Amino acid sequence: MTREQHEPGSLHELFVAERALENSAALLQRAQELDVPISLLTDRAADALSETVTPQGIVAVCELLDRPLETVLSGDANLVVVLVDVSDPGNAGTVIRVADAAGASAVILAGETVDPHNGKCVRAAAGSLFHVPIARVRDVGAALAACSATGLRTLAAHGYAEEQLDSIELAMPTAWVFGNEAHGLRPEVLELADIAVRIPIYGEAESLNLATAAAVCVYASAMAAHKA
Amino acid sequence: MTREQHEPGSLHELFVAERALENSAALLQRAQELDVPISLLTDRAADALSETVTPQGIVAVCELLDRPLETVLSGDANLVVVLVDVSDPGNAGTVIRVADAAGASAVILAGETVDPHNGKCVRAAAGSLFHVPIARVRDVGAALAACSATGLRTLAAHGYAEEQLDSIELAMPTAWVFGNEAHGLRPEVLELADIAVRIPIYGEAESLNLATAAAVCVYASAMAAHKA
Repeated sequence: MTREQHEPGSLHELFVAERALENSAALLQRAQELDVPISLLTDRAADALSETVTPQGIVAVCELLDRPLETVLSGDANLVVVLVDVSDPGNAGTVIRVADAAGASAVILAGETVDPHNGKCVRAAAGSLFHVPIARVRDVGAALAACSATGLRTLAAHGYAEEQLDSIELAMPTAWVFGNEAHGLRPEVLELADIAVRIPIYGEAESLNLATAAAVCVYASAMAAHKA
Repeated sequence: MTREQHEPGSLHELFVAERALENSAALLQRAQELDVPISLLTDRAADALSETVTPQGIVAVCELLDRPLETVLSGDANLVVVLVDVSDPGNAGTVIRVADAAGASAVILAGETVDPHNGKCVRAAAGSLFHVPIARVRDVGAALAACSATGLRTLAAHGYAEEQLDSIELAMPTAWVFGNEAHGLRPEVLELADIAVRIPIYGEAESLNLATAAAVCVYASAMAAHKA
């Protein structure tokens, strides 16, 4: 396999600390099969390359992960997740992991949403950045219009919406739209979506946080679609 | 209202920074009505009392929050959340918030689960520590036995379980049991639960993280029970 044949998001080069060699045999063998160059590092150099306090000792150089919106949205998409102005990289990564688990065919990072290449986002996504196609689109309206054009109903998660999650038809092609963790979705964005939907609150909490709200909504759709 | 009449978790005393006075009028009035002593602090003293980088300028002294297991489990409980050996306080707090939103009647922190009074847990719970009764029980077997004795079916969330979330009857009194974020539930604990259940993974992710998994499971039960 040549470098040119790699898909976006694929591996260019691996750096491995001495201490990580033993536990990484399978990974390194796979990299060799793919003709990925592997370089040995001292433990100290590997730590300096990593952002975390207890790094695992492997650093990979990859392609940038995001792709054009037209590429990630195909005609047979049943579930897409759109994040609008999400600012916390850990939240974005966690939602990308949820979208992957729920079988979403794409995640669109719209508006001012954080860069998916942020280290915290990469770690929170736990590998899912390499599973789900990701697009970055500044123009939120264009992102929602593209979802609609693909035949997806757009559902905007909103704490004060009239429609409640357990009273709408969930088993149909859907793009879930989630807003900023502190401010939610702007009124203009709510206007653009087909339906604004709230998660029922049966107790006294005012709301759920972004990642758990996304998990509840996206999984409600995924389970309904797979049951139908 | 006298101090003695306060419920566990209620307020003993408030310290307020000068800069927080203006935005806290309603809160301070309510505290005065409850005869809670209020002391003014300099901004610098308030910052020193707080754990966060940008504290809000209000510090409250409260009762310890946990109550005896017998007290939190009543005969008409329909939904209870049990955390076993959960070590991250942010995760514990987020799940307590989810449990509150889903209308759970109690959260049981079992085994080596983190102290709910940890500042990160308090912040992640976003007020829900004061809404849902919390019990701390070292003995995990005793916690599950108490749930069963109250008439709750115990469901253990487990990534490799045979039963899948969308194929079990959800609209019945349930205690959801979640394990440590890295290691899940120990085999002995899985044995004790009535059914081990996995969240269906429709994509390529290996799993969900603890908080999002708990949100999916607990809300699946809550929405089914309210629909029934």
